[in-house]
This record gives sequence, C-alpha cells and structure tokens, in this order.
Amino acid sequence: MNEPAKSLEIALDELNELLGDRLSISDAVRDHHSHDESWHPARPPDAVCFVNSAEEVSRTIAICSRHRIPVIAFGTGTGLEGGTVAHKGGICIDTSKMNAILQVNAEDMDCTVQAGVTRKQLDNYLHDSGLFFPIDPGADASLGGMAATRASGTNAVRYGTMRENVLSLKAVMADGSIVTTGHRARKSAAGYDLTHLFIGSEGTLGIIVELTLRLHGKPEAISSARVYFDDVDGAVNTAIQTIQFGIPIARVELLDAAQMKAINQYSGTSYPEKVALFLEFHGSHASVKEQAEIVGEICTDLGGSDFEWTAYEEERREMWDARHSAAYAAMAVKPSAKTYATDVCVPISRLADCIRETRDDVERSADITSFLLGHIGDGNFHYVFLIDPDDPAEYELVQQLSERMVQRAIRMGGTCTGEHGIGLGKRKFLQLEFGEEAVALMRTIKSAMDPHDILNPGKLLPAEQARP
Amino acid sequence: MNEPAKSLEIALDELNELLGDRLSISDAVRDHHSHDESWHPARPPDAVCFVNSAEEVSRTIAICSRHRIPVIAFGTGTGLEGGTVAHKGGICIDTSKMNAILQVNAEDMDCTVQAGVTRKQLDNYLHDSGLFFPIDPGADASLGGMAATRASGTNAVRYGTMRENVLSLKAVMADGSIVTTGHRARKSAAGYDLTHLFIGSEGTLGIIVELTLRLHGKPEAISSARVYFDDVDGAVNTAIQTIQFGIPIARVELLDAAQMKAINQYSGTSYPEKVALFLEFHGSHASVKEQAEIVGEICTDLGGSDFEWTAYEEERREMWDARHSAAYAAMAVKPSAKTYATDVCVPISRLADCIRETRDDVERSADITSFLLGHIGDGNFHYVFLIDPDDPAEYELVQQLSERMVQRAIRMGGTCTGEHGIGLGKRKFLQLEFGEEAVALMRTIKSAMDPHDILNPGKLLPAEQARP
Repeated sequence: MNEPAKSLEIALDELNELLGDRLSISDAVRDHHSHDESWHPARPPDAVCFVNSAEEVSRTIAICSRHRIPVIAFGTGTGLEGGTVAHKGGICIDTSKMNAILQVNAEDMDCTVQAGVTRKQLDNYLHDSGLFFPIDPGADASLGGMAATRASGTNAVRYGTMRENVLSLKAVMADGSIVTTGHRARKSAAGYDLTHLFIGSEGTLGIIVELTLRLHGKPEAISSARVYFDDVDGAVNTAIQTIQFGIPIARVELLDAAQMKAINQYSGTSYPEKVALFLEFHGSHASVKEQAEIVGEICTDLGGSDFEWTAYEEERREMWDARHSAAYAAMAVKPSAKTYATDVCVPISRLADCIRETRDDVERSADITSFLLGHIGDGNFHYVFLIDPDDPAEYELVQQLSERMVQRAIRMGGTCTGEHGIGLGKRKFLQLEFGEEAVALMRTIKSAMDPHDILNPGKLLPAEQARP
Repeated sequence: MNEPAKSLEIALDELNELLGDRLSISDAVRDHHSHDESWHPARPPDAVCFVNSAEEVSRTIAICSRHRIPVIAFGTGTGLEGGTVAHKGGICIDTSKMNAILQVNAEDMDCTVQAGVTRKQLDNYLHDSGLFFPIDPGADASLGGMAATRASGTNAVRYGTMRENVLSLKAVMADGSIVTTGHRARKSAAGYDLTHLFIGSEGTLGIIVELTLRLHGKPEAISSARVYFDDVDGAVNTAIQTIQFGIPIARVELLDAAQMKAINQYSGTSYPEKVALFLEFHGSHASVKEQAEIVGEICTDLGGSDFEWTAYEEERREMWDARHSAAYAAMAVKPSAKTYATDVCVPISRLADCIRETRDDVERSADITSFLLGHIGDGNFHYVFLIDPDDPAEYELVQQLSERMVQRAIRMGGTCTGEHGIGLGKRKFLQLEFGEEAVALMRTIKSAMDPHDILNPGKLLPAEQARP
C-alpha cells in the first residue's frame, strides 16, 4: 500500500471511532456526494461523514489535517459549478444533519442556524413570525452552502445577497480550530472582516458550521406586475429608470421570447412570446400601489405593452406562475437534454449591450436551444442551454459561448459569476477578472490559512502554472 | 548612527528623490500628522509624504519595505481612536492631494474616487446629479479613511455603512504591489472578498488608494420628525417597532436630556430637556407622509410627547438644527475641556438595557460632564465625556467607564466599536469580543500580508503576550 492510501486507511479508522455508522464508504452514498447539479464530471469522495455538530466537524478536520487528506463540505449538492465534486478524492463532510434553528430574535430581526438548515426549512419556521429571509436561489440549498458560494436570487435588488445578510458565522479552520467571526450587532468597526472572508470562499478557507442571519420584516403589502417588450433594451431601461427613480423594487426578472414560448408549451398558456418583465413591489398598501403605477408609466414610456399589476395574492401568484415554471418549462422542451447554466453580472448600464452581444453570438454559433433569464436589477443574467449529453461537440460549443460571455462581461466592468460561484468551472477567469496581484493575494491568504491545501483543494483558485 | 537610524536616512534620501519637496520633515508638518481628534497621546512620524498617485504610494511603500520602516496612511486626521498616530515612528503617507473624482456613472449609480476625496467634496460634486453618498461620520473625513475604519453615521440604519457601500477598491500592499479587489458589478460570487478585507483594516493590511462607491438616488421627498420621551426605553422601543413595522426609516437619532439642555444653553432655544428622538424618512411625497404618520402613532403609544413632523425643507432644517449643533453645544458647556468619545453597538433589543446600565454607572462614578447620543436604529451609541486635560484622574476614571461600557456591550452580544474603529484605544478588547481563535486568524492574515510588520504597526491587533 502506498503512503497516501495508508494515511487514508488510518484516517478512516480514526473517523470511524469518532462517528461510528455516520461514516460511510458505501458506493451509493459516495456517488450521491460525487456531483452537484452542473455539467461538471462527477468524482466521488473516499468517504462521507454525517456530522452532528461544530465539534464533530472540528475533530473530523483535525484528523484529516494530520493525515493530509482533502476535506470537502457538502450541503444539498445543488451547486452549479462543481464546487462539491471530490476533485482530488478525500473526505466529504455532509452537514445535512446539522439542521437546527438555534435562535430567532424577533426584536433584532436576526436568527442563528446550523449550516445544514435549508432556506425553505427556515422559511417555514419563520412563517408566522412576521419575518423572512430573502435570499432565494432556485434550489432549496443549505444556508451554509449559500454563504460559501455567496448566493443570491430574485430578491437581491432590494435585499442584497448572502454578502449583505450574514451578520456573523462560525467556521472550522484547516487545523480544526473553531473561529467565530462576529456577533449580533448590526454594525461594527472592530477588527478584520472575517465574516466576509468566509462568504464566497467555497469551503477553501474553512468550513462554515453556523450562521447568524439578518431577517427582514414581511412587507405589509406586495404588488406584482408583468409587462412585455419587443426587445431587451426597453426592459433593461425600465429597470434602470425604476431604480434611479428611487422605487425600492423588490424583484425585476427578465425572460426572453424563447423562454415565454417554452412556458406556453409547458403550461398551455398563451402569453405573448416577447421579452417579458416580472416585477414585485414591497411596502405599505398605499406604497405598493404607488410603486406599481409609477413603474407602469415608465414601462409605457419605454415601449412596454400589456402592463398589468395587482396586489391580490391569488392574482399575484398566478401572474408569477410563469416565472416560477421557467426552469421546468425549459427542460420540457428537450427532456433528454442536460442543462448548462451560464452566469455573468455587469453594471446595469452595460446589461442591454451584454445581452445583445451574447444573443448575437449564440444565434451565430449554432442552432442550440437556449433561454435567457435575468435578475436584471442587479445586472445579472443566465443563458441556459439544453445540450445533448452524448454530443461532446455541443458541450465544447457551449463552453466556448460561455467563455466568450464571461470575457465580454469582464470587459464591460462585470464579473464571471453573479451568483453561482467559481468552483471548478470559472477558475480560469479569476486572473482576467481581478488581475495577477489580486490572485496572488488570494493565494497568500489561502496558503496562510490552509498551508497543506486540504480544504476543498483544486477549487476557486486557478491552477498554478509550473515555474520555468 | 545605529542601524535603524541609518536605514531611515537612506530611505529619506530615496523618498526625496521620488517626491522632491512633497517629502517633508518639518516639525510643523510632522506635528500636524502626529495625532487625530482623540485623547490618544500624539507622536509625530519621521517624515510626511504628500503623494499624488497610486504609483507614488506603491513606490513609497516599496522603499519603506526595503528598509523596514513603518508606513502610516493619513487622510484628514479626524479619527477617534489614534489610528493615524505614528506610534512607532516611520513615514506618514498623506493622501490629501489624491483628491480626484475619477468617474461618476449615473446609470449604474456608482462613482470612482481617489482615497483623499472627502465626503463633503463628493457631496458637493454630486449636488445636481440626483445622486448622493449616504455615509456621514461627523467629520469631513476622507473616503479612504472612512473605508479603512469602516465608518458610518446617521444614515446607516437605511443605507448601511462603508461596509455596504464600497463596491471595489485599489490598495497598495506591503511590498508595493497594487491590488484591485473588484469591479463595478452590483454583486459577484467570484473569489475571496478582498474588498471587505481592506474595509476596516485601518491601514494594517494595505493602503487604500482608490474606491468605487455605491451611490443612491436622492429621495423624491424627505420628512423629518421630533419627539420627546421621559426615558430611554420609550425612545428605543419606538425605533424597534418602527423597523419591525417595515418603515424604511432613514435616520433615528437619540439625544439625552443633558444634551438637550446643552443645546438650549448654546442656541438660546427652549426645547424640552428630556430624551429626544430625531427622525427622518425618505421616499415619495405620499410615502414620507405615511411613514411620519405611522411613526407618530407608534410614538404616542409608547409615551412620546410633542411629536411633530414636517416635509417642508426649511422646517426640516430647523427641526434638525438641534441635532447638528449637539457636538458644539456639548463642548461649549466646558470650553477648556477635552472631549472623550466612547462608542459601542449592541443588538437593538439590548440597547435600552445597555444605555440604562451605562448611565447608572456614569452617575454612580463621578460628577463628570457627559452627554449621550445614539444612532439607535443600529444599536450604536456614544457617551461623550468632557474632561479636564490637566487632571489625569479624570482620564483614568473615564477610561474605566469606557472599559466597563465595552465589556457590557460585548456581554450583550455587541461590539467594542460601532463606527470609530480599534486604532490604539480598543486593541485590548479584540480578544474579548472575537475570542482567541479569531484573533489568532487575524494575526495569521496580518503576518501573511505584511510579514515585516511595516503597515501601521501596533494598531488594531492586540500586543502579543511574551511566551514563557
């Protein structure tokens, strides 16, 4: 037996002693933890630890650290850039049993949860509290995973992303020590901002085990609106003018004509097959009426048609149904296909350009099936491609489209990922986006905090080029 | 000449070659850069560099790095915790000539400025743009300094602090390299959050030379209100209920009876000498009326008296005059005294307790002159003490009061500083607030990024205890 294999064997013995049957090496369990929801090739970990507490995570990592074995945190496996793939083998720490909601402080509008709590679990728990947590990526992800990937969703234009909604967290370091990054105060000028250092670090600097989250008061009233445009420009300009007007818009989602057509096919509806905007306003009864009416005028000025709004819950739900069914409707167009989701974010002034150039590129390149949807208040959009899993040429083509899309976004002052993270898929763009010096600094931090490179190795940071 | 003195001499020669007469070793200039606005003892740097550009900062630091000479960044010298005192000698980098506003992007509501631009300079520049930058510490501080200390002010309850309003920045590292931390996209899931690592790092990890800031649309309308309470509880509960009700309150400032009395003496006014709340609401005309009226009802329910509100600019200005004159009115009570400003922040549910216990402690301890003011929407408050500069016993007493205030705040889940920073004054509380592991991690980051400890040495991190 070679050296690494021996180390792994000893580590597994020690982990077995610590966790008993909560350590699994079964193929089924390892397979389940070998992939996320993306196109990235699966690779199983050597074992999966179902941990119950921060202390167990600490002891697990301490064992792995001693034996130099990679450690990958796993929440719900709903990532989109291969962040939880056991790229270099090692031990997967599954946090799904760490699902306790530890504290809700209604007066302070915050709560403390274990990392494995999912967003829908928290949502249900808060149901009658008058409070809610606004970050809503498509999947029912774990809050630990959402923090680790700096997730967002449809409410970010008003409520921010995970970046703005984690007050403090607890993370286990590469040596097993447990760091608490903050407290429940709304603001602080004390010390280095360790909280934000872990948010978006994708398990490469530490493993998040607990989070204190900002909650928000449920609005007294909500109004929703839907409107159609002949082109993307009118829709994007509506978002820009709405925000500049000071309307505290809660959601502004764009779907393209292909996506609306897919929805009509899927749901038997007959929406206009044009660029559609779905909007939502939060506030008092008077204010959500006022907001909707002002935005209605903006839409009309900018060429929008069939603007409708309502504050009645049932009508709102019906109005947004189309948006919510978008993903399933897209997949139903080609049930045998795999989806490949792209993700860029640009300053909103460049959004229409970025979308237009991307669309032209997509149309020029191939007759691949694609849908556009965007959280356009933030300048964030996704082209979702449907690919034949047995056609490597299609993969290659879509990868190239995605690569050009990223280069375009970065050229326009944007980022290679608005909300999906770097994982395996976007590593090669980090230097283009931030420059050599910033990537060098990221490496300095990584080396200092994880000197033996055991925490999710091979993720986020680009591969170092061999020195001559 | 000893080794350090020789190194300094060579470095000064090199700096002289780089900067010519923008390198100063005059006593007057060094004295001006020896202190901030706090009680911390002055200590001048060995020389002051008036730099013009990021490149000059880079070359200045590269020289200091080679000769292991401390480097202290200096904006306007308006800090309150001794952050810019040249504690260990060295070279002061004065950024005041780096005061160009490089770019304002109205559609994206952001701007890029050099670090020496002050907040009022930016405010004037934006005057007719329909946009504003909301962070307003008392002083007309530089934006670089505000980012370095994670500053806030009266608008933070609605608009956040520097933490929430810097999109990206450029900083010079200990080796002279220049790092750009981000871009103009509103959100990003790419890479480690270097932006937040520098915000609040007080010049100990790098020197901020450029900032890209979020701007906000000027509200269509503003309304202001003032109300009085017999005790702090009613005022604090008003803030809690207002926020929980979902009112997007822009400002909620508390002044105690002593402060109101000082204002009456100073301005010849006859306000009730009770706990006063000053409030401000931003939004549409209809919404600011609605907000003020709802909060008026909350105030009445909670024992507030003489609630008044107005949306007329002149009346608003008059109403807030008292709040704006608070600092001068306090100082006028004892013109020969020095002010000693404390600064803690707690979860708002504990704010009334924290203020009450602190007030009892102050009243028990001495007949020292003190005033309370708080940005209570955030749970942040200051006791400002007037001290006889020739009476060391008064200093000692106030230091002890401040120390107990910090311990109380941390015990209640809060922080030793809401907005003034750590500097020299709060170093000893860092471990109490964050724990040993977090402080160890902060040290790891500092050592990795500044291995020779030349960047603002002796600030922020506590002194390391000698090992046995």
